[in-house]
Amino acid sequence: MRHFLEVDELTPEELEVILDKSEKKDLPRLLDGKGMAILFEKPSTRTRNAMEMAVVQLGGHPVYIRPEEVGLDKRESVEDIVRTLSCYHAMVGARVYSHETVERMTSVDAVPILNLLSDLAHPMQAIGDLLTMRQELSVLEGRTVTFVGEGNNVARSLAIACALSGMSFRLASPPGFEFSPTDIDTIEKAGGAVEHFESPTEAVDMADVVYTDTWASMGHEHEAEQRAVAFAGYQVDEAVMAAAGEKAIFLHCLPAKRGQEVSNPVLDGPQSRVWAQAANRMHSARGVLAWLCEENS
Amino acid sequence: MRHFLEVDELTPEELEVILDKSEKKDLPRLLDGKGMAILFEKPSTRTRNAMEMAVVQLGGHPVYIRPEEVGLDKRESVEDIVRTLSCYHAMVGARVYSHETVERMTSVDAVPILNLLSDLAHPMQAIGDLLTMRQELSVLEGRTVTFVGEGNNVARSLAIACALSGMSFRLASPPGFEFSPTDIDTIEKAGGAVEHFESPTEAVDMADVVYTDTWASMGHEHEAEQRAVAFAGYQVDEAVMAAAGEKAIFLHCLPAKRGQEVSNPVLDGPQSRVWAQAANRMHSARGVLAWLCEENS
Amino acid sequence: MRHFLEVDELTPEELEVILDKSEKKDLPRLLDGKGMAILFEKPSTRTRNAMEMAVVQLGGHPVYIRPEEVGLDKRESVEDIVRTLSCYHAMVGARVYSHETVERMTSVDAVPILNLLSDLAHPMQAIGDLLTMRQELSVLEGRTVTFVGEGNNVARSLAIACALSGMSFRLASPPGFEFSPTDIDTIEKAGGAVEHFESPTEAVDMADVVYTDTWASMGHEHEAEQRAVAFAGYQVDEAVMAAAGEKAIFLHCLPAKRGQEVSNPVLDGPQSRVWAQAANRMHSARGVLAWLCEENS
Repeated sequence: MRHFLEVDELTPEELEVILDKSEKKDLPRLLDGKGMAILFEKPSTRTRNAMEMAVVQLGGHPVYIRPEEVGLDKRESVEDIVRTLSCYHAMVGARVYSHETVERMTSVDAVPILNLLSDLAHPMQAIGDLLTMRQELSVLEGRTVTFVGEGNNVARSLAIACALSGMSFRLASPPGFEFSPTDIDTIEKAGGAVEHFESPTEAVDMADVVYTDTWASMGHEHEAEQRAVAFAGYQVDEAVMAAAGEKAIFLHCLPAKRGQEVSNPVLDGPQSRVWAQAANRMHSARGVLAWLCEENS
Repeated sequence: MRHFLEVDELTPEELEVILDKSEKKDLPRLLDGKGMAILFEKPSTRTRNAMEMAVVQLGGHPVYIRPEEVGLDKRESVEDIVRTLSCYHAMVGARVYSHETVERMTSVDAVPILNLLSDLAHPMQAIGDLLTMRQELSVLEGRTVTFVGEGNNVARSLAIACALSGMSFRLASPPGFEFSPTDIDTIEKAGGAVEHFESPTEAVDMADVVYTDTWASMGHEHEAEQRAVAFAGYQVDEAVMAAAGEKAIFLHCLPAKRGQEVSNPVLDGPQSRVWAQAANRMHSARGVLAWLCEENS
Repeated sequence: MRHFLEVDELTPEELEVILDKSEKKDLPRLLDGKGMAILFEKPSTRTRNAMEMAVVQLGGHPVYIRPEEVGLDKRESVEDIVRTLSCYHAMVGARVYSHETVERMTSVDAVPILNLLSDLAHPMQAIGDLLTMRQELSVLEGRTVTFVGEGNNVARSLAIACALSGMSFRLASPPGFEFSPTDIDTIEKAGGAVEHFESPTEAVDMADVVYTDTWASMGHEHEAEQRAVAFAGYQVDEAVMAAAGEKAIFLHCLPAKRGQEVSNPVLDGPQSRVWAQAANRMHSARGVLAWLCEENS
């Protein structure tokens, strides 16, 4: 059974199949009369709404589950909850604190598990990002993506997706916020490489895509102040976008802390594609679901 | 783009079109395959269930969102949340503390915004109320509606709806709980007038409709005791209904505090139409949604 | 109007009709365009997901309601909440602390009420259990079911269902955890009897079905420690299953506290049918809903 926990589970060809499916708005109703449970340990706006509508567009019924409703490892073990949900649903998606939780879910192997964000990876975001890049830049191969910020779950999944698509990936981050050696290893195994910079302006030189994320994303809110100090100078502002050049597009997985990691003129400016990117979360979710249904049929 | 924040955005003709649409149970599936986000800062029974089923009856998928799930102005600004939701949904409805919040939502102008109750207005309630009155009284023009209670959001939207329909509107309220001058101004601009009374019995004389609402509605629960004193003598009881005459009908937006603003014999009595009125919340919501879809197509 | 609060409301023939309907996966879309409100005072995984999908499979739209959202007897009386929900929904299901709450709901008599678990009864569980037994054992009549644990709501509904199906029912429980005299009376009125044992090994001798439930189910979590003492020796482990014989099947309503009321080798072993049983929660819910729709049409 195929699950989808991280982008490196895909071959380059499979990634392209998913992107092609994501472009189609009239896919067969592969989830007709079927359910999909989407379980969130952390809050979500884009992921929940995109997933619900993707399921609906494939004919299915999404059931949104809040963590206190099932009591992960409290009322019942993660494995038994997945065994139960698989009695009623064709798929289970989960946004979790620890990546180990989604790994334990796949061990049940009763229905496909989708990682809707873990501390390690955000593959559904990366697929939406690549769809947006392909629509905006036509050809992906040979392009350069610069991620300004922490080497976090979003950056990691994106770097792997870039590797599979023949794109160069650069990370501009302050000391202590680079990718871990394990992440680097994973990205390299996927055929990629990470070029690291301390200076954002240098990192975006000749980049086709400038990407950033909040400095203190979910789970790190308590470090917000200390991170604001570390990331001073890492705001994607007009100067950074000017260094990238006017053909570069700006992406952000959102939610944005306006005036922190990105200035308003950039987020709302002519190079920003963040709303097309947000909309693509739904289209790419539909593509991933359709692909998983077919892989497992 | 047409939104719907308050009844005075409608012409008398548009109001009639909406009421006509609300009578039809087999409207075209205008929301087929589409989503509608309904976001609640305050709890809801009637509005949520009526909206969900109205969306379903038009072929759409409702996504019910609790405030802590999106973090209005905390996790993300109101405007950015609406920009995001408009990526996945054909419409956004919101029940908010401050009317300013729904106004900010309309500023995005990406999808139609529906006001599902604010501190200022409750237009979806007023449309359901008018539908009920039209069904019960046949002709609206020339009728008299007496609202016993505070000049609140429900009363304001109802007064505007009465103005557009050629009905007289009377308010019976204790000193300090009348309409604000701004409200009066808005009602008059819509072609209406408010006749104010201190005595409920005098106010309901010859009235076709006697309407009341809780003394301490959502957001004012902490003032419940002090309001109970101010509103002593304002209960709609058998004596008040007798003063109105036996042809008058009784309406209440619910939930009712039985034994406070209304006596049980009135709420459960032969003149009460409160359950037909509650049911009309769904039918009128379907009418408003269908009208908004067509206006914006 | 037929409601469904406890299994003893059914005749043996009706129970069989429901089981037959539960086997059919292509029932007519009896809830097409209609809603069902499912209201939970207590958390739920199986019941919520099974009910939502059963409603969807009959063409309907489920609205999942958390208790704080409607404020049972706080914002509005239980009766008025049901009156309201019946304006939008074809049925109302409720998981409640007190059985009296669902009884009060039926007093409104506007739409059929389904008991989704009360302190007294769990009829939707019992129907799913019987469906599982019929699938596994072919013939129900003359079979013996042994319930190891407290004479609780699950045991009571199961005992009544056994009575209606011609099955013998045994309870193995420590002193103080037997059925109440009222429960015994109800089971006997349904044509059944309860054979009581202190020893689980004796109770399961020649049993076709060995059933257990958590020692401290919902509402009794605070007594968990003291109950663990009382129920020591009542774990369904390999020795108990050996005493029952290898043809016996093991059932559990779940969630299971692994290593407490059941050992892992039993729960995950070859005699366990707990996941088929969990899946039957959806199929039997569909059967009950279809039967109730037809009874009330």
